[in-house]
Amino acid sequence: MIIDCHGHYTTAPPALQEFRDAQLARLKDPSRPAPPALEISDDELRATIEGNQLRIARERGHDLTIFSPRASSMGHHVADPATAVEWARVCNDLIYRVTTLFPGNFAGVAQLPQVAGEPLDASVAELDRVVTELGFVGCNLNPDPSGGFWNSPPLTDEYWFPVYEKMTELDVPAMIHVSTSCNPAAHTLGAHYLNADTTAFMQLVQGKLFERFPTLRFVIPHGGGAVPYHWGRFKGIATREKFPPIEGSVMRNVSFDTCVYHQPGIDLLTSVISPDKILFASEMLGAVRGNNPDGDFPWDDTKRYVEAAKLTDDDRAKIFELNARRVYPRLDARLKAQGR
Amino acid sequence: MIIDCHGHYTTAPPALQEFRDAQLARLKDPSRPAPPALEISDDELRATIEGNQLRIARERGHDLTIFSPRASSMGHHVADPATAVEWARVCNDLIYRVTTLFPGNFAGVAQLPQVAGEPLDASVAELDRVVTELGFVGCNLNPDPSGGFWNSPPLTDEYWFPVYEKMTELDVPAMIHVSTSCNPAAHTLGAHYLNADTTAFMQLVQGKLFERFPTLRFVIPHGGGAVPYHWGRFKGIATREKFPPIEGSVMRNVSFDTCVYHQPGIDLLTSVISPDKILFASEMLGAVRGNNPDGDFPWDDTKRYVEAAKLTDDDRAKIFELNARRVYPRLDARLKAQGR
Repeated sequence: MIIDCHGHYTTAPPALQEFRDAQLARLKDPSRPAPPALEISDDELRATIEGNQLRIARERGHDLTIFSPRASSMGHHVADPATAVEWARVCNDLIYRVTTLFPGNFAGVAQLPQVAGEPLDASVAELDRVVTELGFVGCNLNPDPSGGFWNSPPLTDEYWFPVYEKMTELDVPAMIHVSTSCNPAAHTLGAHYLNADTTAFMQLVQGKLFERFPTLRFVIPHGGGAVPYHWGRFKGIATREKFPPIEGSVMRNVSFDTCVYHQPGIDLLTSVISPDKILFASEMLGAVRGNNPDGDFPWDDTKRYVEAAKLTDDDRAKIFELNARRVYPRLDARLKAQGR
Repeated sequence: MIIDCHGHYTTAPPALQEFRDAQLARLKDPSRPAPPALEISDDELRATIEGNQLRIARERGHDLTIFSPRASSMGHHVADPATAVEWARVCNDLIYRVTTLFPGNFAGVAQLPQVAGEPLDASVAELDRVVTELGFVGCNLNPDPSGGFWNSPPLTDEYWFPVYEKMTELDVPAMIHVSTSCNPAAHTLGAHYLNADTTAFMQLVQGKLFERFPTLRFVIPHGGGAVPYHWGRFKGIATREKFPPIEGSVMRNVSFDTCVYHQPGIDLLTSVISPDKILFASEMLGAVRGNNPDGDFPWDDTKRYVEAAKLTDDDRAKIFELNARRVYPRLDARLKAQGR
């Protein structure tokens, strides 16, 4: 089977954004009424999924998508913890409904109610809720909740440990994923996302986080940012600065996804990174939509690239399915319960 | 011939750092004496070059290095314009001496006295001085003088135009190169440098700078950061967000260097980027020193990778020599005057 480990609900009904707009308006002007509870019917949800992510997944032959709220809308830069809690809950509950409407096609991953500079208690509570009550299989963790100003401590800092303790307890991984860039210097999709992947990876290389949390697992999306392209640089820096060798340390706990939207990129990824450490993903419908005019197929049809990469059938099966089942054991358990 | 377009004087005699330390100490405590004028003999300079960059260049068969002060030491985050002016002048004068001691082997590129948030007049003046009086052929431009906090406007903003006007007048290019990271979230060599390359490229994609400055030329180092690995992503984003097609617009004025320290990275770079837009570089002795233990050769021996890449002889000559002569016309003129 083919598991796409990186999908966001980018096609949610407009009522979701209206809720968010009302929430933010009230934050500016507390005399405004609280936004009414979100009302979206099952039929509306079904339509947005069946007409978009599920349609394309079926066309391409993806069996299941690990699905989370729209990353760019997480909005962790909004400096109000109560707003963040409510917004994460609303978004996660919508993901939950998608996973119950299409239990064979989607598994939930959480948005956490992070706020830059604030403690992570609310994130821990929300993670516990969505995993234990809603059957989610992981979370997205934002290493830069400021939205492009990078004023949070590195991921190896004890600031983050409460989330890691809960992740360890629940045995769920996190995808490292930032939200929108509020910094005019850094375009959200063309700079901030990729920079975050590279930055987070290097933080992990520098620290010894996995000595303290040996079962903690991260997925670094967008093919690992700049990392595989500069694999020699990272290996060389690790040697020169006397960090533990990357392949024997940090890569035990880190995987990269395949959201790299051209064949040479996937060829590089699969040639330098162990096939045990690559998880299939497309992030459709995400940053890059539309067709490659040279080939008349969608940029984000990453299955096509992985199929064309020089891989053994065994390695391709790891990338398409087996690694995701290992990194997301709660997904594996659910699939087994479904007889898959 | 083989031109390495990206070398820094990372092996300068210790007196240079002592000067900088004294300068910074006086900034903290103005009662301290001004640092004495830098005294380094020609023999000392010769020794640091002949024992390091020139020795390795000869071993590898590089003919000439485009040489600038150590990038991580530029220290544009130090918020004192007079200090920046003095420091850039001292560093550039040392580069000039290297280029006069070894006129066949080195051409100078300037450190600019940038200071985050300050106007660029001093940078314009220093650029004019080093090009017209010292024969420099280009400059390094730091898109984030804050050192990792990214609080300067994008490179397409008119804030930068005075430098672009001077570059245009003098017909010299800039390498986009940040200095040390002061942000604990971003490792200087493993995150900040690569992120800056990606960020700057995307700023150029978003803007229309080259309509205003059609002859302006930038070299984005470190193989273009994450960009070539994500070439499909960038092309797709440009289409979706209705930016001009990358290959027909921004790439007319931008080149990438070959500071990518493994064969698969260079193979990707040379397979997706036009050979007209790649400049040979090694950045030795720079971020990554020492040998790849798998192959027992230096990580930064990029000539080896370019020679092994699938390129025609004509394209390889462009990458090794001809593109640099086109992008740095003052270098070309100097080489021709030397009969090369």
